[in-house]
This record gives sequence, structure tokens and C-alpha cells, in this order.
Amino acid sequence: MQVLKVSAGSRSAAVAGAIAGVVREHGRAEVQAIGAGAVNQAIKAVAIARTYLEVDGLDAICIPAFTDVDIGGEQRTALKFTVEPR
Amino acid sequence: MQVLKVSAGSRSAAVAGAIAGVVREHGRAEVQAIGAGAVNQAIKAVAIARTYLEVDGLDAICIPAFTDVDIGGEQRTALKFTVEPR
Repeated sequence: MQVLKVSAGSRSAAVAGAIAGVVREHGRAEVQAIGAGAVNQAIKAVAIARTYLEVDGLDAICIPAFTDVDIGGEQRTALKFTVEPR
Repeated sequence: MQVLKVSAGSRSAAVAGAIAGVVREHGRAEVQAIGAGAVNQAIKAVAIARTYLEVDGLDAICIPAFTDVDIGGEQRTALKFTVEPR
């Protein structure tokens, strides 16, 4: 399952659609964001995806965690959100 | 139960301690943030609070949602995070 990488410029509604699609197909989605702007777009997307998934009778929850990622040889701390039905 | 209001200047470790304390005492906590900097601190606090609550055998999940708040007579959209055991 691929990780959905969100940037500060990502449209949260578009990311929400992607999250809902991955949850429907794979049972869960992973979203990754680095920096306040990206984290804000990511969590707004999760809030919107919840409303999309409610239509399917899914009560989606979010599990935030820190994760280390390698960006061009540089170690960065990202926030990872796992989205899955409760 | 009071809402934990987080700002961009809040220390995420301190907020995490407050979240964990409220979840232990009341079974759930509500965290509110307005703006990218505040949302980033809030969600980092939830990620840290999860590690505190794991020590108590609690698998805490987060439910993000939009909420309208009144700030000095002005209507603003906040993000609200409900934190509770799965």
C-alpha cells in the first residue's frame, strides 16, 4: 500500500478523496506530512475523508505517530497518520 | 469536560501530558486548534499522548472534525480532535 504524501500546497478535498478511496480498497490508508502547513492540510483531509466514509457506514479513526524519513539524504521527522475504520 | 485549546506557541509535550491526564480521568479528551501552527502542535501532542497512554495499556485514537467557534464575536473554523481509547 502506498503512502499518501501531503504538502502544504496539497488541496485537502483532493487528498480526502484519495484517503477515502484507499480505505475503501485496502481497509486503511497511510498519510505522511512534514511541516506545519503540510500537517494542517493532511489532518483537514482526514476530517473530510471521515465524512466521505460515513456515507459508506464507516466510522474512520486516525492514529498519528512520528516517523523518520529520508529526504534527499537528509533525515527528517514526519507525522504519519494511519486512517482506518474503528 | 473542558476543551484543551492549543496555540502555535503551545509546547506539544505539555499539551500531551494534559491530554493523557484528561483521557485517564474522563475517558476522553477534546483538543481544539485554529490555524496551521496550532493544528501542528495539537496533532504532535496527540502523537506523544498516545505513547503516554500506551504505558497504561490504552490504545488511544484520534477523531478530527471541523467546528465553528466564536472568537471575540468573529466566526472561525477550528479543528477539533477527540482523543479516546479505541
